[in-house]
Amino acid sequence: MTDHIALVVKMVLDSWRVRIKQTDGLLNQLSDEQLLCEVAPGKNRGIYLIGHLITAHDQMFRIIGLGEHMFPEYINIFDKNPDKAFSVIPFVSEIRKSWKKVNLELGKHFELMPTEEWLQPHALVSPYDFEKQPHRNKLSIVLFHSHHLSNHLGQLILLKNPYK
Amino acid sequence: MTDHIALVVKMVLDSWRVRIKQTDGLLNQLSDEQLLCEVAPGKNRGIYLIGHLITAHDQMFRIIGLGEHMFPEYINIFDKNPDKAFSVIPFVSEIRKSWKKVNLELGKHFELMPTEEWLQPHALVSPYDFEKQPHRNKLSIVLFHSHHLSNHLGQLILLKNPYK
Repeated sequence: MTDHIALVVKMVLDSWRVRIKQTDGLLNQLSDEQLLCEVAPGKNRGIYLIGHLITAHDQMFRIIGLGEHMFPEYINIFDKNPDKAFSVIPFVSEIRKSWKKVNLELGKHFELMPTEEWLQPHALVSPYDFEKQPHRNKLSIVLFHSHHLSNHLGQLILLKNPYK
Repeated sequence: MTDHIALVVKMVLDSWRVRIKQTDGLLNQLSDEQLLCEVAPGKNRGIYLIGHLITAHDQMFRIIGLGEHMFPEYINIFDKNPDKAFSVIPFVSEIRKSWKKVNLELGKHFELMPTEEWLQPHALVSPYDFEKQPHRNKLSIVLFHSHHLSNHLGQLILLKNPYK
C-alpha cells in the first residue's frame, strides 16, 4: 500500500514536471517579440504571464517549507499589480532566465522530498485545521500550481503563429 | 496508510471537480454571443472549445471503463476537425446542455468508484505494459483531463469582457 501512495504522489509530481517541460518547449519556440505581445487584444502580455508564473512558483518555496523567495522584486510587478502598470519591467531575456532558475531549484527540492513529507501540512494551514483537513498538505500546492500553469499555458499558446 | 491513498486519490478527483465548477461558473457568465466569438483573433471559438471538451470528457467513459460515449456525433465536429470546418454545428444552447450532462454522468460514476479501482489499468494500456508502468491507471486519466480543462479554461476566460 505504501507503494501505492508513492505512486500517486509521483503521478502528481510528474504532471507538474510535464507542464514545466511543455512551457519550456513553448518558450523556446516563441521569440522575445512574440512574448511582448498580448495573448488577445487588451489582455495580458506573454512576458507578464511568465513573470506572474515565476512569482507564483517562487512563493511555493515558503509555502512548502523549502526556503525563501528567489525573486522577491518580481512580486510588485507581476503579482500585486496588473500588466502594463509599470513602464519599465525586466527584459524578456532576464525573465527567461528566472523562469528556468525558479523551476530548476524547485525541481531539485521536489526530487529529494520523501513521499510522507508531501502529506505533511503546508505553511498556510494551522495544525488545528490540518487535523480536519488533511488535504491541505504540501502535495496540494503542487497540484494547484500545475493547474495554474496549465491555465496560463493555454493562453501563452495563443502567441504561436500560426496557432495549432 | 490506506487512508493516505484514499486522501490523495480524493485530492486528484477534487481538483477535477473544482475545474468543472469553475467552467460551469464561467459559462453562466458568458452569453451565447460571447461563446460564438474567437478567444483571440483567428483562434478557436468558445463554442468549439466547449464542444471539444465535451468530446474529450465523453471519451473518458470508455477509457476508464464506465460505459459508452454519450455524444459520438460530436467527435467529427469537435475532435477530428478544426473549428470552422463545418458551417452547421449544434446550437450553443445544445452545447451548454451536453456539457452539463457529460460531466454530471461522469461525476456520478466517479463518486461510486472505490479508491483501489482508480489504481487499476485504464483501457488503453496492455496488462504487460501496466506491470511496468502502474501510473497508467484510471486516475491518471482524470489528472490528465483536469489539466486539459484548465488549459482551455484559460482560453475561455479571455471571452469575458472586461477580462480580469
